[in-house]
Amino acid sequence: MLDQIHWLAAVTVLGVLEQAYFLLQVIYARRLFGISPPKTSGPPEFERIFRAQVNSSEYFPIFLALLWQAGLFFHQGLAAALGLLYLYARYCYFMGYKASSSQRLAPIYFSAGVLWILIAVSALGILHYFLSHYVGLNVLQLLTA
Amino acid sequence: MLDQIHWLAAVTVLGVLEQAYFLLQVIYARRLFGISPPKTSGPPEFERIFRAQVNSSEYFPIFLALLWQAGLFFHQGLAAALGLLYLYARYCYFMGYKASSSQRLAPIYFSAGVLWILIAVSALGILHYFLSHYVGLNVLQLLTA
Amino acid sequence: MLDQIHWLAAVTVLGVLEQAYFLLQVIYARRLFGISPPKTSGPPEFERIFRAQVNSSEYFPIFLALLWQAGLFFHQGLAAALGLLYLYARYCYFMGYKASSSQRLAPIYFSAGVLWILIAVSALGILHYFLSHYVGLNVLQLLTA
Ligand SMILES: N[C@@H](CCC(=O)N[C@@H](CS)C(=O)NCC(=O)O)C(=O)O
Ligand SMILES: N[C@@H](CCC(=O)N[C@@H](CS)C(=O)NCC(=O)O)C(=O)O
Ligand SMILES: N[C@@H](CCC(=O)N[C@@H](CS)C(=O)NCC(=O)O)C(=O)O
Repeated sequence: MLDQIHWLAAVTVLGVLEQAYFLLQVIYARRLFGISPPKTSGPPEFERIFRAQVNSSEYFPIFLALLWQAGLFFHQGLAAALGLLYLYARYCYFMGYKASSSQRLAPIYFSAGVLWILIAVSALGILHYFLSHYVGLNVLQLLTA
Repeated sequence: MLDQIHWLAAVTVLGVLEQAYFLLQVIYARRLFGISPPKTSGPPEFERIFRAQVNSSEYFPIFLALLWQAGLFFHQGLAAALGLLYLYARYCYFMGYKASSSQRLAPIYFSAGVLWILIAVSALGILHYFLSHYVGLNVLQLLTA
Repeated sequence: MLDQIHWLAAVTVLGVLEQAYFLLQVIYARRLFGISPPKTSGPPEFERIFRAQVNSSEYFPIFLALLWQAGLFFHQGLAAALGLLYLYARYCYFMGYKASSSQRLAPIYFSAGVLWILIAVSALGILHYFLSHYVGLNVLQLLTA
């Protein structure tokens, strides 16, 4: 079984390390700007770092859910490659948002694009499974025949 | 293996699509009300949409965790059906909250009810596995004997 | 397959119950202090409970991702034991934060420590799999030879 998921697992742990980096950045920013919990508002510089982490946290479960469905039902290597691309785009998002609000835009569009591809790939993989499992229709075989 | 999870995978991707819809609604609301990030406060109409998405994001990992445990340890079809019910309740929650704070109440109670059923079903399934695996006690067999 | 994940599943459901407890605490606090949604600000007593739940929600997907990778690629029992430790630390975090901001610090450091161990254990397990799968190098066998 591990054979079908080891790349997904590796990208998952890398994604966790990225989240840890974002969380640490918020902790440093809290110290730098003197914003003690439970406060979450402060100068725009702080709020951008804070929001960049919150936004990345909101997308993390979505990302993982897609990575694994795409990897299990379509192709593990492709899913992992798209996963790496997403994590790279998220890093650019965080760094861009930290610098200025407008610099978050290009990376978030890019990362959203990667997620839509992961959705398409997952949906295709699952659809293919349903068709071959319930209807006995193997689309791949038809296409290559 | 995919045979035991394809319905769970399908509901998971549907859940992701719902989250994507909620995220897009916040992006549209930000434009409509002119609330640029990192700001998150504004008129109540905006804040209700914003909070409806945040609240749904908080519950999404909980929902997925239960969907998969219930599906793996109890019954895939039942878990998927409860999952669809939950996603429907969440949609009503978002639409209700968008309209007025009080209209979020009925759907959140309903969605919480579905989650409690998923918790019960997961716990029963796992308990059953532990009993038959460690104690050799097959409750289902006893009941039907 | 269930044989390799039943402890992970049990800890996952326990984690969900803990999240449910935190969510209920926020609902009670909203009533007690009269903070109706979509509002999220209020007296520090309320904000600490609110933030304790939000913070725990942010870490929940990270925790689950690590629990499962550590359990699948390293050792299920160890991962589950570390998972229980994490859930205990989170409970202390919530209770500490509820009492005062400074009392959240010791448990968050402890819980972060547990997560770092889970990261290390997951990474080692996955690395071991890659080495034995692609390079044919079985480190465990070498060590015990
Ligand atoms: N929670 C997000 C949901 C929508 C979203 O992901 N928006 C993107 C594009 S406007 C973003 O970068 N939001 C900035 C933020 O979350 O602080 C929000 O409040 O904006
Ligand atoms: N983060 C939530 C946790 C508790 C919860 O899920 N509350 C429900 C019932 S009061 C809700 O609809 N909250 C509205 C919101 O999150 O904006 C909160 O702040 O209320
Ligand atoms: N979202 C968190 C990210 C970083 C974090 O986990 N911080 C720890 C240590 S300062 C914490 O307890 N934060 C309090 C909180 O989230 O309210 C934050 O705003 O602080």
